[in-house]
Amino acid sequence: MAEEIARNAHLASTVLKTLSNDERSDALYAIRDALFENKESILKANKIDMENAINNNLASSLIKRLDLSNNDKFDSMCNGIIDVAKLEDPLNKVTLATELDDGLNLYRLTCPVGVLLIIFESRPEVIANITALAIKSGNAAILKGGKESLHTFKEMALVINTVLIEKSKVPKNSIQLISTRGEVSDLLSQDKYIDLVIPRGSNELVRNIKDNTKIPVLGHADGICSIYLDQFLDVEKAKKIVIDSKTNYPAGCNAVETLLINSKIPLTTQLEVLNSLLSAGVTLHVDPTLLPILNDQINQFPNQITAATENDFSKEFLSFDIAVKNIDSVEDAILHINAHSSKHTDAIITEDESIANKFLKGIDSSGVYWNCSTRFADGFRYGFGTEVGISTNKIHSRGPVGLEGLVCYYYQMRGSGQAVGDYLGGGGTRVFKHLELDPKKVKL
Amino acid sequence: MAEEIARNAHLASTVLKTLSNDERSDALYAIRDALFENKESILKANKIDMENAINNNLASSLIKRLDLSNNDKFDSMCNGIIDVAKLEDPLNKVTLATELDDGLNLYRLTCPVGVLLIIFESRPEVIANITALAIKSGNAAILKGGKESLHTFKEMALVINTVLIEKSKVPKNSIQLISTRGEVSDLLSQDKYIDLVIPRGSNELVRNIKDNTKIPVLGHADGICSIYLDQFLDVEKAKKIVIDSKTNYPAGCNAVETLLINSKIPLTTQLEVLNSLLSAGVTLHVDPTLLPILNDQINQFPNQITAATENDFSKEFLSFDIAVKNIDSVEDAILHINAHSSKHTDAIITEDESIANKFLKGIDSSGVYWNCSTRFADGFRYGFGTEVGISTNKIHSRGPVGLEGLVCYYYQMRGSGQAVGDYLGGGGTRVFKHLELDPKKVKL
Repeated sequence: MAEEIARNAHLASTVLKTLSNDERSDALYAIRDALFENKESILKANKIDMENAINNNLASSLIKRLDLSNNDKFDSMCNGIIDVAKLEDPLNKVTLATELDDGLNLYRLTCPVGVLLIIFESRPEVIANITALAIKSGNAAILKGGKESLHTFKEMALVINTVLIEKSKVPKNSIQLISTRGEVSDLLSQDKYIDLVIPRGSNELVRNIKDNTKIPVLGHADGICSIYLDQFLDVEKAKKIVIDSKTNYPAGCNAVETLLINSKIPLTTQLEVLNSLLSAGVTLHVDPTLLPILNDQINQFPNQITAATENDFSKEFLSFDIAVKNIDSVEDAILHINAHSSKHTDAIITEDESIANKFLKGIDSSGVYWNCSTRFADGFRYGFGTEVGISTNKIHSRGPVGLEGLVCYYYQMRGSGQAVGDYLGGGGTRVFKHLELDPKKVKL
Repeated sequence: MAEEIARNAHLASTVLKTLSNDERSDALYAIRDALFENKESILKANKIDMENAINNNLASSLIKRLDLSNNDKFDSMCNGIIDVAKLEDPLNKVTLATELDDGLNLYRLTCPVGVLLIIFESRPEVIANITALAIKSGNAAILKGGKESLHTFKEMALVINTVLIEKSKVPKNSIQLISTRGEVSDLLSQDKYIDLVIPRGSNELVRNIKDNTKIPVLGHADGICSIYLDQFLDVEKAKKIVIDSKTNYPAGCNAVETLLINSKIPLTTQLEVLNSLLSAGVTLHVDPTLLPILNDQINQFPNQITAATENDFSKEFLSFDIAVKNIDSVEDAILHINAHSSKHTDAIITEDESIANKFLKGIDSSGVYWNCSTRFADGFRYGFGTEVGISTNKIHSRGPVGLEGLVCYYYQMRGSGQAVGDYLGGGGTRVFKHLELDPKKVKL
């Protein structure tokens, strides 16, 4: 069953990737129209999921995520599909062109990765989102939803499948929506057909998937972001950025979890920043060496200051908590962050450009910021339109991943009968020209 | 021990990646000079390896690979380091620049992957090759050589380590040469510190590594390349290309293993191609349906024609053998190749451009060729200078991997105190500008 699903996706991808940008985009317009036409039935199904969630005592944040009727969530979900359709075609872009010899040309072109397996928990709008990104980027996708959004998922799947069968050149198996339970592990073993797994959900889900598949996984489990306050900081910027990074949305993966403070910063300035966090309701997990200087604060905010354990500096609190530590130099900050962070997003606050540059170059993460909030790490804020997730991998796509992160490349060679045996190194005497051509002027 | 090696490599990489292009390239010049100065002692060590290999009855092809004194192999190995030093700096290239708002700019820059683990069997020149590529691309590398080249390896390691300690800003642990046995599996479990594994050796080695690590592996186990002869072929080109692809170097991963022949090609033309293969000494493993038409050939070359098994179409012969099958259309050829090939390199021979384009777009491999030999799949022939290997992965680097394939990217954000809470979507009212800047004009 899982093998059949995966093989069908692979076969569909072989056709999908040869379609023109218009053919792929037209499918997205048709899907948007059909979702609008079926708004009533989808919201009805969504209501059943909501009622079940309430009956099952799910957390209110989860229930909020499930709700498609909330504000104009449904409409903006549908319009998001059109935003993707309007983006520039990410496929068949020539990124390198070399004339190897007369009548023998090498081109590097962008192409889809192939088959994506997307596993997500709640958030039914992910279905529309991923469907749009997958079709636009020429990737077949297998979507496996969580049981919380089962009814919404089934209804939307029906609508999307019908559009692909009746109104589109996109093969129907390009988007397969799997709502039955217990197939995830079977799908994760289809490394022959599935090229990339994208989990959208809790850290536990991501970690569990990474541990149980040979297929590359795009995403992140933890978001352990740090801010380093340099000696030459502007304290107003520091306060604003630290507060925003911690409190704007503490459950976000781009919220800050660790604050490193240069020990040469005057104590009053250090306390000013910490006081602003305390006043904002944040609990400080401070390195024990800091406790003696925080007597006044402990008196004023007795429940918001605690001694940090070593473990607190590798912890994603996802709450109004932050680990705080003194550090002696930007070099030490880089070492600490590269050793403890999850390679998501880290920031420095300083007015000294050369120190900032050292930090920007030395940190190993997918996002490294100077004088702004870690919360900016997001596909919408980066201007990518929508995103499939944020990757902390060291290879392929990193940071917020939009359309461009779902393509790869391949080499085309166009010859006129050439054999390697004619060339130097292959047994012959001909010498390669290796003449670089302007990829932008290539018409294939 | 393995953990210490890996952690030291990681720490070195943190410094290495902040060095300038000149600092990285200078180290390569110093290494080249030192290798030349120590040519005698290195060749002496190499001679011991050669004698051991002969005493241990290793295959003559292996012994040939070991030999550094052969022709001008040593000199060209050293000069290859300078070729890499002279290449354009692959790091800190700005590939995207967006003004998010006044004083808030996003940049995407190329950066090293981090720590590479390279595992190779014989070929001592790989040490020089990889050392050059790693340092130039700002990656720390752990090199684990095979026991066949132990003495050469130790001697070269000593020279390289001395240069890094005495004459270079590159931290000494940037290149660690490990010659002790039995550490591979320990190193493969250091996924906290090692970012990419590159195996250079037999299919068995590669497969064994892929099965035993969570770290991404760049490379290929099999090279099952196919050629499809289309109905509208030029028979002279077909003969030349098929013969070259099969016989120029059958042990190469880019040698052809499967020949698909369009059944609409006149029988005499089909036989002309097959006869040329037989005359070149190639054994044909033919689809049983083809046997009846090959009576004359069976009489003339009784030992070179055999009935193919299904397995022969997924086989890397690495010898003067080829699997042959009739196929009805380019669509069927695409389906066959995508199902059987190892996503290395596949070619079509045709004079029909629209059929060629269908093939070039439909095949899933990292190299797709029209009217030229599969043997062109090689970093040197592509004009990349040297290569670390050929990747059949679907993500990150594909095909022959040179300097560019060893870098990734990260996002830098340079702000002036911005908080997300001020912006629409984050709780505020400010709207992002998302103004695209010309990356080429950015000076950071």
